[in-house]
Amino acid sequence: MEQKAGHEKTAQDKDFVKEITPKAVDYSQWYIDVILKTKMMDYSPVKGFMAIRPAGFAIWEKIQELMDRRFKETGHQNAYFPLLIPQSLLQKEAEHVEGFAPELAWVTKGGSEILAEPLLIRPTSEAIICDFYSRWVQSWRDLPILINQWCNVVRWEKSTKPFLRTSEFLWQEGHTCHRTEEEAEAETLQILEIYREFLETEMAIPAIAGRKSEREKFAGALRTYSVEALMSDGKALQAGTSHNLGQHFAKVFDITFLDQDDQLKHVWQTSWGVSTRLIGALIMVHGDDRGLVLPPRMAPIQVVIVPILTKKDRDRVLEAVSELSAKLKEDLRIKLDDREEYSPGWKFNEWEMRGIPVRIEVGPRDLDKNQVILVRRDTGEKEVILRGELSARLPQLLEQIQSDMLKRALEFREANTRCCSDYEEFKKIVEEERGFVIVSWCGDAACEEKVKNDTKATIRCIPFDKKPESDQCIVCGQKAVATAYFARAY
Amino acid sequence: MEQKAGHEKTAQDKDFVKEITPKAVDYSQWYIDVILKTKMMDYSPVKGFMAIRPAGFAIWEKIQELMDRRFKETGHQNAYFPLLIPQSLLQKEAEHVEGFAPELAWVTKGGSEILAEPLLIRPTSEAIICDFYSRWVQSWRDLPILINQWCNVVRWEKSTKPFLRTSEFLWQEGHTCHRTEEEAEAETLQILEIYREFLETEMAIPAIAGRKSEREKFAGALRTYSVEALMSDGKALQAGTSHNLGQHFAKVFDITFLDQDDQLKHVWQTSWGVSTRLIGALIMVHGDDRGLVLPPRMAPIQVVIVPILTKKDRDRVLEAVSELSAKLKEDLRIKLDDREEYSPGWKFNEWEMRGIPVRIEVGPRDLDKNQVILVRRDTGEKEVILRGELSARLPQLLEQIQSDMLKRALEFREANTRCCSDYEEFKKIVEEERGFVIVSWCGDAACEEKVKNDTKATIRCIPFDKKPESDQCIVCGQKAVATAYFARAY
Repeated sequence: MEQKAGHEKTAQDKDFVKEITPKAVDYSQWYIDVILKTKMMDYSPVKGFMAIRPAGFAIWEKIQELMDRRFKETGHQNAYFPLLIPQSLLQKEAEHVEGFAPELAWVTKGGSEILAEPLLIRPTSEAIICDFYSRWVQSWRDLPILINQWCNVVRWEKSTKPFLRTSEFLWQEGHTCHRTEEEAEAETLQILEIYREFLETEMAIPAIAGRKSEREKFAGALRTYSVEALMSDGKALQAGTSHNLGQHFAKVFDITFLDQDDQLKHVWQTSWGVSTRLIGALIMVHGDDRGLVLPPRMAPIQVVIVPILTKKDRDRVLEAVSELSAKLKEDLRIKLDDREEYSPGWKFNEWEMRGIPVRIEVGPRDLDKNQVILVRRDTGEKEVILRGELSARLPQLLEQIQSDMLKRALEFREANTRCCSDYEEFKKIVEEERGFVIVSWCGDAACEEKVKNDTKATIRCIPFDKKPESDQCIVCGQKAVATAYFARAY
Repeated sequence: MEQKAGHEKTAQDKDFVKEITPKAVDYSQWYIDVILKTKMMDYSPVKGFMAIRPAGFAIWEKIQELMDRRFKETGHQNAYFPLLIPQSLLQKEAEHVEGFAPELAWVTKGGSEILAEPLLIRPTSEAIICDFYSRWVQSWRDLPILINQWCNVVRWEKSTKPFLRTSEFLWQEGHTCHRTEEEAEAETLQILEIYREFLETEMAIPAIAGRKSEREKFAGALRTYSVEALMSDGKALQAGTSHNLGQHFAKVFDITFLDQDDQLKHVWQTSWGVSTRLIGALIMVHGDDRGLVLPPRMAPIQVVIVPILTKKDRDRVLEAVSELSAKLKEDLRIKLDDREEYSPGWKFNEWEMRGIPVRIEVGPRDLDKNQVILVRRDTGEKEVILRGELSARLPQLLEQIQSDMLKRALEFREANTRCCSDYEEFKKIVEEERGFVIVSWCGDAACEEKVKNDTKATIRCIPFDKKPESDQCIVCGQKAVATAYFARAY
């Protein structure tokens, strides 16, 4: 099949982008279009359940690899706990069961037998894991227990959205036991910092770390902390949570140990998790009207090589790009797209939509000049470079893209974070500008509730190092005790 | 706490081995004892469901890492499909549903709602994946589809055994679509060879590859192939299966593509899997009366360093082993066990039971002589070596252990594989000697059934390159068409 000889796209090259709704027209539709067009996910016949296709799953694999390394470096080990939890176990911790009851999937029959006690598909695994821990922990020598699992969980959702809210999702859940309250709190905060640093370093997503209000904390926790990111439509997304469980679960599940002083004590526990919703965050923070934009460290393919083939020069161009690809593969994640049933322009559109950070174009004229053309996905900038300089240039360019993407995301967040001390102005900001709004708050759940009812905004978190900027709660005018980040959220 | 100064175990060092039933006394109890004592798995409150503890899960992670690499090198990608399958989808392929019906777990309620159609927890994912593939495949350009998923599955079992048969287990299941029958058959056999080679190279387990009989094939497959290993009690274990599904599923799920000749055709499919039962195989092939024996390539910890601490020399010994550990960690998986609440002898027993391939002992006298002591787990051999030679010696020693372990497993299998052409003798071998019995077979399922009823032995597989050694079926005396490996199996 004859191919166009140039580096330009033409009208004949199917431009998938035309099938993506622009963000400004309908953000929500843009998000769905990007996911379906790039084949990241697909709907199953069961409402709320979805398949994560290879293009989406490859990102989850990167998240797993880079996150798991951090867990192991801090002494955690992986394990696997049963999918099904007896109803009676889940009911042991009162707040916990109340929080999850409306979202449970019930297994009532196994084989041909109706079960005497229904089993629940785990919505989270505290209950079943605590049951094991009550047997595994005996002595102070058994502590700390630092275990994580990567698994699927099910929470029956009425209204779902790919990656952000699905009835089944993949996540990791860490569950630890400690001798002292201080150790448990230190673990909770250590993990929170791992999440924040991971988002920033690997995903180029700046995140605010802080404490959740009582109203927003995990069902059964003493304190919940979270990392919160701002999506490009100005809505916030909770990207990870870390819970100090205190002794709530230890007491009802009877997890005790004989301490060095010969006293029998309850352990102090934590749990923490991030899920496939991080993939949704990645799409919404960096994506644009042409589709995905992947930060180089997260990209399953960092560089795609597209040869420009002509009848006359086909063989020598193919040979040159094969050689180039083999060489670059030693250090980078490279894809050589040498399919001949598609034109170069078609491929440019496809790989742009799929967010591959850098494209290399090589045609006959480039070979003659001993050069290649590099194109950045994030800015569209082109650069002509000698082939001999490519191995040195590419890692540098990828790092540049990574840091530029973080910088832009940070600038966006800064531009969309506003301080406010007047409630009428607050409501206007939430309605018209979106973003984070930093306010002083009295700590009363009634004020928090009123804000939610008036504006749909919730407290995303209470950052660690911020004193109240005003003496007065923005809602009730009483004495403020905390600074809170409010936003509408996914 | 004062520690003993020597390299010898004493009566005070708790020897866990005494709590393990010897193989010769009760093989089945030996297996359970090893698993529980080494903390690889634990029973949950739900019958047949178990937790895989860190010591067991670390082996699964190694299997995943080394197997997944092979899948990716052969062009496969990972994805994730829903846990729950509508009853109507599973019922589409008649043989398939008949095979799995007795083992299904039924979800009948989601949230507060009784489901109109019950959902089944996947016992395997052909049905749900074929439903997706019917939409994903349109043109020959979409083929082949080479997708794998790592996930949990549930099969309600009446009688269970850790790792070998549990109601929930972890596995990988590959599902591919091809243009032609030949391509599908080539894929099926390529995966079978990956399994065989993986078992041999990484797990030091020799396996026989071959075809399953009609009676033993996968419910819904055209042909099933498997790799079969021999456990140290003489029973066989099916370690992995690879199915050529033909067009059975493509026809009922309507997976069609427009071929280059403009004809609408059904795809040809394969599916294949290995599971956490491989961990059971590892235990039973290599374990001994002192517990686990891990092949170095599978061992999460390859070398454990045990310092011998005395009051006087504590600091300088600890300093030396820390330095040693840091240096060796660059290339090997090293654990420094510097706990002071346990004696060296206690640690020797513990790490032997846990199967760590090599132990390094370092005491004050060793420091003075600039030496360390190496102890092999598989043979118990000790070797004194200069510290300067350790970095070179260890990788060599680990490779030696790996190949010795394979050699011993192979010798055991050879010694327990017998040819037989007389049915009375056959029955005697199966009853008294166990192992594989190679016989000629007429191909009739009735003969296969008779053997099973008489002896509990089944056809494990029909190897590729073996012609019948006799003209007559060992059971009925009719013309033999195949050579079959029979054995009692897990």
